[in-house]
Amino acid sequence: MSTNDLAMKVMERIDALGRISEELGKLTRTFCSPAMRQANKQVGVWMQEAGMTVLQDAIGNLIGRYPGKEGHEKTFILGSHLDTVRDAGKFDGPLGVLTAIACVQHLHDNKVKLPFAIEVIGFADEEGVRYQSTYLGSKALAGKFNEQDLKRTDVQGVSMAEAIKKFGGDPEKLKEVRRDPQQLLGYAEVHIEQGPVLEQKHQPVGIVSAIAGQTRVNVQFTGLAGHAGTTPMNLRKDALAAAAEFIVAVESTGLGTPGLVATVGQIDARPGASNVIPGTVILSIDIRHQVDATRDSATARLQDLAGQIGYKRGVTMDWELVHEVQSVPCSRDLTAALGKAARQHLVEVTELPSGAGHDAAVMGEITPVAMLFVRCKGGISHNPAESVEVDDVRVAIAVMNDFILSLGHQNIQFLRKKNA
Amino acid sequence: MSTNDLAMKVMERIDALGRISEELGKLTRTFCSPAMRQANKQVGVWMQEAGMTVLQDAIGNLIGRYPGKEGHEKTFILGSHLDTVRDAGKFDGPLGVLTAIACVQHLHDNKVKLPFAIEVIGFADEEGVRYQSTYLGSKALAGKFNEQDLKRTDVQGVSMAEAIKKFGGDPEKLKEVRRDPQQLLGYAEVHIEQGPVLEQKHQPVGIVSAIAGQTRVNVQFTGLAGHAGTTPMNLRKDALAAAAEFIVAVESTGLGTPGLVATVGQIDARPGASNVIPGTVILSIDIRHQVDATRDSATARLQDLAGQIGYKRGVTMDWELVHEVQSVPCSRDLTAALGKAARQHLVEVTELPSGAGHDAAVMGEITPVAMLFVRCKGGISHNPAESVEVDDVRVAIAVMNDFILSLGHQNIQFLRKKNA
Repeated sequence: MSTNDLAMKVMERIDALGRISEELGKLTRTFCSPAMRQANKQVGVWMQEAGMTVLQDAIGNLIGRYPGKEGHEKTFILGSHLDTVRDAGKFDGPLGVLTAIACVQHLHDNKVKLPFAIEVIGFADEEGVRYQSTYLGSKALAGKFNEQDLKRTDVQGVSMAEAIKKFGGDPEKLKEVRRDPQQLLGYAEVHIEQGPVLEQKHQPVGIVSAIAGQTRVNVQFTGLAGHAGTTPMNLRKDALAAAAEFIVAVESTGLGTPGLVATVGQIDARPGASNVIPGTVILSIDIRHQVDATRDSATARLQDLAGQIGYKRGVTMDWELVHEVQSVPCSRDLTAALGKAARQHLVEVTELPSGAGHDAAVMGEITPVAMLFVRCKGGISHNPAESVEVDDVRVAIAVMNDFILSLGHQNIQFLRKKNA
Repeated sequence: MSTNDLAMKVMERIDALGRISEELGKLTRTFCSPAMRQANKQVGVWMQEAGMTVLQDAIGNLIGRYPGKEGHEKTFILGSHLDTVRDAGKFDGPLGVLTAIACVQHLHDNKVKLPFAIEVIGFADEEGVRYQSTYLGSKALAGKFNEQDLKRTDVQGVSMAEAIKKFGGDPEKLKEVRRDPQQLLGYAEVHIEQGPVLEQKHQPVGIVSAIAGQTRVNVQFTGLAGHAGTTPMNLRKDALAAAAEFIVAVESTGLGTPGLVATVGQIDARPGASNVIPGTVILSIDIRHQVDATRDSATARLQDLAGQIGYKRGVTMDWELVHEVQSVPCSRDLTAALGKAARQHLVEVTELPSGAGHDAAVMGEITPVAMLFVRCKGGISHNPAESVEVDDVRVAIAVMNDFILSLGHQNIQFLRKKNA
């Protein structure tokens, strides 16, 4: 099949998977649900058609293996996730799994064997919808699964251990899902961008430099509630005015620091009556950058600013660090090889960080990783309006084909050594 | 009785009224409740002791009348309200009624008759808690009662008409509550300040220049929701960043315009997740000033600013006028007389606008009005912590005594003419 035909097939299959849902009229496919079982079954058939042997591991990851040349047992993994958010778009996750299968199909059709095996993995849980715990599939593979999570219950009261058992997995054997890093050569993931950068730059695909680190903070400003009519402006301790000044500073800090994104997404002003000066405001900040030091210094600067704004207004400021994730840089060698492959198809190759988390971030803990982003319409994701052009899928498959072949042409072992 | 003794008595009575409540452990006294009936009964007794004849009108206002000299039938009204908010302080309302009774007591003790009658009114509803409609008592008196309101129901489903009937009033006869402006000479109200100005200035009482007009607006900024990690700062249409810039401008406008108060009390950012750029923000603005033209021009300036902030950010701005009340200037002559009386007791007399609404605002539609504010601790009101010093009550009674006598000494008719 031509890359064009492969791209058309990927689009057909994305449509087909988009109809496998646990909610009527919308796409929702959560960890260990009947919809996931059906999706795994369907994708398993496509894997077999592409010459792979298929298994489902103890946590529910679907794994297709395309063997390498005789005597070459090490493995390069391609993949993404098959679960979705609620009322999802159909590309987030499946695009990576189905383009990977298309690449293996291409090898299989041409009877090409590489000096390593390829595995295509459809991870069982990346979004974390059912148990509010993300990356369950890749964490199990990376040996980072937290056994305590098995006790978590979903909204129906079903524990994760029960759900895994019902799905045909085995919560007792999750340790066996873990992969020996010595047997792995690397991991590459195709994913929709979920942002507007490639569209803005008129690029079908882009190469991910790193998965950004993230800091999440809750900030509370505590002033003094008062009557909006009877308290003169100069006698106020308005927590919302303080918060507003700070939100403007958060935005300026983001705009003034290349590559930084800083967002206030939640705000709650209390007591919240139109005729009462807010006494308390709680807001969230989400700060991301691909370089941890840049994120850390921006975070420290914002904490200082919040304190200063509070101090000059007689408003107390409390800073609570909620969540922190370090950035995961992509492998230089894999990314260079991916870039070289991309330059065969594009005049200009865009490199960009991923502001969202991906299975690649977890896989990065045990093996070198690379990611290829595919342009998405309007930067919209986690929404039924999520949309990718077949032509961009064609470019992604072509780039990934060349990338995989280039790995075969090199002595792939150098990757292992250099990235050890 | 000395003014000192009168002030002590007012404080005792405020405590006694503070125990008449429809909620255990807190002070709540709403329109036509059993607690109001008991309060009216008690206050009626005090009125009679002060030489007044007492009646309750068709809407439940308690009216005590202290006749003038023979042949002088016109009436000067003193008063405030006897209802409260939920979990109220005990001074807001009753302070005005009880100081008025103390003043009449003082006349009665000294056998002074004036060339006009004095009525003390305890209005049945100012706070509007039960039917979400304020000033029911004074509106009935001013002939501004809206008959449609009789169909309103409280949370128990009891209509206002039923409630009035049960209370011993008569919803059919509300028109008879209306007073003929020709028979009135004026209205004066003592009230706690409900703000921090007098405390800040170390003044026991202050003279109200006007009851501020008020504009309430809901502003909506509509940008574009997006992923907080994947949308670069320069590609965002962040509705909350726009709102924050505007809130800072609202505060600056308030600070830069003498006497203006401008408050954002409510804000709602949607979708309201820490990792999503807010696409929509709705906020309230409350703008007050004693001069309507100043309020109007500040409002227009803010609307312009909101539009400009939206425009430069690619964020839509919608401006919805929710509520508008014109300011009620106090009578120059009554206020001058009140000031003259105050100067007999104070070195310095503070004049200030009222940022909150009062029965005087409604009474101002049919007769000249004046108001005397009494300092309250920390500017706190609508709260059990509401607190007034007995010494300040003494000053208020002394000022009101002299004020009332001064009206008697003048040809009171000049007021009617000049304020007609």
